[in-house]
Amino acid sequence: MERRVKRVIVQKYGGTSVESVSNIKGIARKVALEKAGGQDLVIVVSAMGDTTDELMKLADHITTRHHKRDLDMLLSTGEQVTVALLCMALREEGVAATGLTGWQAGISTTTDHGGASILSIAPERIQGELKMGNVVVVAGFQGITGDGDISTLGRGGSDTTAAALATKLGAERCEIYTDVEGVYTSDPRYIKNAVMISSLTYEEMLTMARRGAGVLHPKAIEHAMPHNVPLVVRSSMSRVGGTWIHGSPGKGVSHPVCGVVFHKGRFCYTLSPIQNRMEIKRLISSRLTLWGMEYDTLIEEGGDTLAFLVAEDDLERADSIFDRAGAIVRRDRKATVTVVAKDKKTCPVIRDKVRQILQENRIAFHTIENCTNHVTTVVEESHAIDLASLLHSAFGLDEVQAFEAAGIY
Amino acid sequence: MERRVKRVIVQKYGGTSVESVSNIKGIARKVALEKAGGQDLVIVVSAMGDTTDELMKLADHITTRHHKRDLDMLLSTGEQVTVALLCMALREEGVAATGLTGWQAGISTTTDHGGASILSIAPERIQGELKMGNVVVVAGFQGITGDGDISTLGRGGSDTTAAALATKLGAERCEIYTDVEGVYTSDPRYIKNAVMISSLTYEEMLTMARRGAGVLHPKAIEHAMPHNVPLVVRSSMSRVGGTWIHGSPGKGVSHPVCGVVFHKGRFCYTLSPIQNRMEIKRLISSRLTLWGMEYDTLIEEGGDTLAFLVAEDDLERADSIFDRAGAIVRRDRKATVTVVAKDKKTCPVIRDKVRQILQENRIAFHTIENCTNHVTTVVEESHAIDLASLLHSAFGLDEVQAFEAAGIY
Repeated sequence: MERRVKRVIVQKYGGTSVESVSNIKGIARKVALEKAGGQDLVIVVSAMGDTTDELMKLADHITTRHHKRDLDMLLSTGEQVTVALLCMALREEGVAATGLTGWQAGISTTTDHGGASILSIAPERIQGELKMGNVVVVAGFQGITGDGDISTLGRGGSDTTAAALATKLGAERCEIYTDVEGVYTSDPRYIKNAVMISSLTYEEMLTMARRGAGVLHPKAIEHAMPHNVPLVVRSSMSRVGGTWIHGSPGKGVSHPVCGVVFHKGRFCYTLSPIQNRMEIKRLISSRLTLWGMEYDTLIEEGGDTLAFLVAEDDLERADSIFDRAGAIVRRDRKATVTVVAKDKKTCPVIRDKVRQILQENRIAFHTIENCTNHVTTVVEESHAIDLASLLHSAFGLDEVQAFEAAGIY
Repeated sequence: MERRVKRVIVQKYGGTSVESVSNIKGIARKVALEKAGGQDLVIVVSAMGDTTDELMKLADHITTRHHKRDLDMLLSTGEQVTVALLCMALREEGVAATGLTGWQAGISTTTDHGGASILSIAPERIQGELKMGNVVVVAGFQGITGDGDISTLGRGGSDTTAAALATKLGAERCEIYTDVEGVYTSDPRYIKNAVMISSLTYEEMLTMARRGAGVLHPKAIEHAMPHNVPLVVRSSMSRVGGTWIHGSPGKGVSHPVCGVVFHKGRFCYTLSPIQNRMEIKRLISSRLTLWGMEYDTLIEEGGDTLAFLVAEDDLERADSIFDRAGAIVRRDRKATVTVVAKDKKTCPVIRDKVRQILQENRIAFHTIENCTNHVTTVVEESHAIDLASLLHSAFGLDEVQAFEAAGIY
């Protein structure tokens, strides 16, 4: 009965692909075809459509001050439902399937309920099911803490589950099925000339994701990168397109700029005037890091102020940190616009060109320290899309037709 | 921090008490009061209102031939949602609560998905939480198999969970909160003179439950009985009433008959004419037992036929067993009406009286073998309620005002 396990493919389905029972049946048909082709498959799924919202509504009827352990127990049921339904649909297609929750899949996490990180994966159950020839369906977004409690991984959690499983299982690749055809040079909802990118390195994608490309969570890339597991982002509705994310640059013609991404809802904390500038900077930076928050330090023209930029989601925690900083603080809503480069050597040239465009268009801006493969500027939120559009044109991305069309796939 | 655990009370809430968020808040207020009174509490909950039906509908959209492992994974989410919401509501009342799924509560079951039996309970997690002063909220109806799969216990599963936990924890008592005020002498929806019973022995209740009193599942009684854990069945809406079920007869005035219960939807398989009568009887009986089905053997007047009675839920399995019996089989829908006696010595007198009433009212009937504390007759389904009503009057139950009012509580 036991058979040799080939290199597995991990696939993740979220968004509209799991919004209804008929879409779940669609996934089952697709998976059945691939299974019939001899492929070993692990499928990671998200909660159906508005399930998570519906569960949150129930919780909100009781209290809006949610205890995070309770909330994780509640929300984790959403993915479990999708797992069970997809297994039923697979069986209807004649495919033997075993559904697993996060804890059954051996996914151990930190105790940081609502935003836990995967610590380790015990792959024995999944490997055993694969050996028996079963498709394994795993609930994304969830795991188990050392105390035996159910945890959830926060936003993008199912992507992270898929990438972490792919890494642990030594998968051939990890396919992230989503509502868009791949990763674009900019957000196609706002920048009409944005085009799909066929190939990116982990570092490029990590910067794209951290700086605003919402299509893939940075944590997923961080799991895949050290073990060189290729990630593919593509639409569940179409076989064309798709963006490959891997360790080495693609073989196609490479453009010096990957894309222009932006983040609205960034909050700028300005401390001024302050003494012991470097000391306070060090103190606040370490606290922000301690709380697991990504932040930026701004370079101010004057010199006697200190400014930090944090995401909207981290506002409450950031407030408590800055309240204790002992300097006068101003908090302003801003946006970041980032040009992601293929090579960090081109960054100074890119920076000069960005500044030139900002000045030509009379857009006030701040600069962020410590850029490696990207140039980020901080502007008023109302200027973000205009600036992104200007930069998208200025760096020649409007003209790119099939960006790196000669990529791997 | 650690404190001594007093004898705990296990409470189970189902039906209307968990049908809405506001009802769940009501349970939380009640539990908070009892906790404030110093009581250690373990609360077992069912799925909210129509959650199970809604989940079944989703599953039915995919297939009606459900794989039972998948179905258990799906349905078990219902109780998990209630657990999370009740914990949130308890915190709002200022009560520290820890919610546990079946597997977190250490409930190990057989692998008989959809109708699993509890094999053992590892109580350490629950005991640890109680020691820390927390109310423990446990998902009823579910457990974990030896393979690490989620199982469900079938109908009445939450009652069974509560009774099994009460037994394992050496609880002071197990309170089953339901939509009715207690156990009645007959079904009050059909028999208008039915009255609530204040006290019953395990054996009496077991017969009442097996023969049609839907208020408590026989499995729950089977768990409590060997360890003498008192069960209390009462309404979550009112503090009055309630039926105590325990090892020794109550102290109050005892009526010779406990109640008249009935079961519609019983199916009678008649094999005739057959040779090797006893051999076939033995064979079929052993198969029915092997499949975990409760059945009755009927005494036929003639003598060359053989008849078995099984429940509607077991119809599919029974069909497959009788198909292989090799005799001509007729299947008729029937009903049973059972008089439950306090003392098996009175059974012959009760049997004579039942027969007299059947004959006076010209009701055709069969008799069931092997009665101990009860007399059961099999009649056409259309006669069941009339006969129950006649027997309820004939055995003086109509006149009982406060049956065993001087009971324990």
